[in-house]
Amino acid sequence: MDASRDIVIPKEFEFGSDDDVLVLESGRPFGPITVRYETYGTLDKAASNAVLLLHAFSGDAHAAGYLSGEESRPGWWDSMVGPGKPFDTDRYFVICSNVLGGCRGTTGPGSIDPASGAPYGLSFPVVTIGDMVNVQERLVTRLGIKRLLAVAGGSMGGMQALQWTVSYPARVASAIILATTARPSAQAIAFNAVGRNAIMSDPRWRGGAYYGHEPPARGLAIARMVGHITYLSDASMHAKFGRRLQERDEFGFDFSDQFEVESYLEYKGGTFVDRFDANSYIYLSKAIDYFDLEGKYGSLERAFANAVSKFLVVSYTSDWLYPSYQSKEIVVALMRQEKDVSYTEIDSPFGHDSFLIETERQGRMISSFLQTAQRGEEER
Amino acid sequence: MDASRDIVIPKEFEFGSDDDVLVLESGRPFGPITVRYETYGTLDKAASNAVLLLHAFSGDAHAAGYLSGEESRPGWWDSMVGPGKPFDTDRYFVICSNVLGGCRGTTGPGSIDPASGAPYGLSFPVVTIGDMVNVQERLVTRLGIKRLLAVAGGSMGGMQALQWTVSYPARVASAIILATTARPSAQAIAFNAVGRNAIMSDPRWRGGAYYGHEPPARGLAIARMVGHITYLSDASMHAKFGRRLQERDEFGFDFSDQFEVESYLEYKGGTFVDRFDANSYIYLSKAIDYFDLEGKYGSLERAFANAVSKFLVVSYTSDWLYPSYQSKEIVVALMRQEKDVSYTEIDSPFGHDSFLIETERQGRMISSFLQTAQRGEEER
Repeated sequence: MDASRDIVIPKEFEFGSDDDVLVLESGRPFGPITVRYETYGTLDKAASNAVLLLHAFSGDAHAAGYLSGEESRPGWWDSMVGPGKPFDTDRYFVICSNVLGGCRGTTGPGSIDPASGAPYGLSFPVVTIGDMVNVQERLVTRLGIKRLLAVAGGSMGGMQALQWTVSYPARVASAIILATTARPSAQAIAFNAVGRNAIMSDPRWRGGAYYGHEPPARGLAIARMVGHITYLSDASMHAKFGRRLQERDEFGFDFSDQFEVESYLEYKGGTFVDRFDANSYIYLSKAIDYFDLEGKYGSLERAFANAVSKFLVVSYTSDWLYPSYQSKEIVVALMRQEKDVSYTEIDSPFGHDSFLIETERQGRMISSFLQTAQRGEEER
Repeated sequence: MDASRDIVIPKEFEFGSDDDVLVLESGRPFGPITVRYETYGTLDKAASNAVLLLHAFSGDAHAAGYLSGEESRPGWWDSMVGPGKPFDTDRYFVICSNVLGGCRGTTGPGSIDPASGAPYGLSFPVVTIGDMVNVQERLVTRLGIKRLLAVAGGSMGGMQALQWTVSYPARVASAIILATTARPSAQAIAFNAVGRNAIMSDPRWRGGAYYGHEPPARGLAIARMVGHITYLSDASMHAKFGRRLQERDEFGFDFSDQFEVESYLEYKGGTFVDRFDANSYIYLSKAIDYFDLEGKYGSLERAFANAVSKFLVVSYTSDWLYPSYQSKEIVVALMRQEKDVSYTEIDSPFGHDSFLIETERQGRMISSFLQTAQRGEEER
């Protein structure tokens, strides 16, 4: 075991069994809910140094460090979270929880419904980004934190961060909003719809009741392949694969001919099945499609009317899933409402995934933004 | 029956039974081959006014007019082909044939293999854009045409047009190349790979031997949905659907909630199954992925070294499947070889489909380009 490794112990929090039941945005009461979360660093005495990380679609509570000495790769944002890193665990108490509807320790469609003793499947309620945030609010309260120094996330995590500033304005000193949108476009919805269709068309999906049977692995793999294409860019795919063939130099004119990009996607699709539940894919992608601050509040300006957080918004030139113009719409609405907002567009070839890769450039901004936010809190 | 309707009689041409067998680019001899084609207008005495239209992925020989008085929609490029239209059938003899490997009358994987008496399925040979062109060359020769006034096509049709100028330089006076590429990018290959995977993952696909059984309709529908997204643009999808819900005003928070864009894709995917064969999807998408003039000839400049046609290249600002930069690579290579090339980028919101929609703007260019080409031929 590598002694230098930070071994993280995941924790669980349960609520909503009885009178503290959560009422979902659909109006349906739902519970109990188990929340898987991890923390890094130490909460200060005033409980004023807490930063809540919000994960993206296929992420989980395991943002940094290693869960065991054997784990080959650290958490999904380890490059950004740790001592001396932008989310500096020597200064901040960093929290990350798995989202409601997920499949990585927090209650989701694969969890056991206590009423039936069987997994929920499609009887799991439709959940929203707002519901995910309301669950996180319960966790943060349980941890004794009245006000977060920051919420931060990319993609679906950025949606949750935006929702925090709208749902709980007084409880969020600052928000770091990366590679996201206030409402996914028709094109983004279309890609999610294809993914859901691929899963639901797999006969092994069985109307969502596949637990205890073979999972709809092919359908989920195809959904993931579609997703992967949207996370990369034309340029990054070209740089990574070009038109190289897998394991041969010339066309063999048979169906064993594969371009490297095909093998890569099939590999990524195939391994995804081992760590992700197909029904969670359906529920979370639906939550993303539903997310629409403009539609819900009448306009983006009205959505942000009561927000009091400082905002850092970052978009990436080659992100075509949630392109820069969508971040700019957020920034313009915030500015019209005279909110405290910084915006940067990072010139990056890595597409939507840039927020997971461009750690140095966004890291400097986040580091200085957090320090300013902390000074602001001290002067309050 | 509407008397003003042009009723078109499709024709068939067969070759390759014996000594005139076609040798494919893979080296494999293949035949017999039936070619479905249509013609519009009249071939002049010198056989000098023939224009060959090359269809795109899901197109067919039926480019213009109506096959019967009952047909509700005319051929796929009817807006461009007819008396007084850009491909003016009062002036030109216009030919369009279904491609080799297709499923609309020309021999493909769903055709009967005379050796076995059963459909080819996956025993059909892998075919290339070059093979399609070689089949067309047989047809053109049979029609008594030594030299085409023009070859013209968009997308996969543009690839065939490019290949004509390279394979048969002396036989093509001019080439109209729309919305295409000299080699699909890794991203474009990735989308095709997802489509093939969706089909091959459908249990009804049966390794390609589904003829006589239920076809792999769900897999093919998903492949088509992916394709459709790449044919449109973010902007055109936004204009067409926005985030409107199908048949309701508010979220119902159940899985009957559908955005209009989802219903549209599912409808388009579902109806495609009635007119397209899943194995042809696999073969034709593979032919597109294989197409690489740069890889085959060492460089684009070398590919065009012997070309003597006049070129009109048109790309469309919102086409992200074969973006303008790929057309510009073709144009630069042609210019470096001092070929006669005109290039225009049309500012259009309709994505890759623009070449089927922007008939007025591209029509004016094509009309004048063809007249110039015809004058050039008269002066020859």
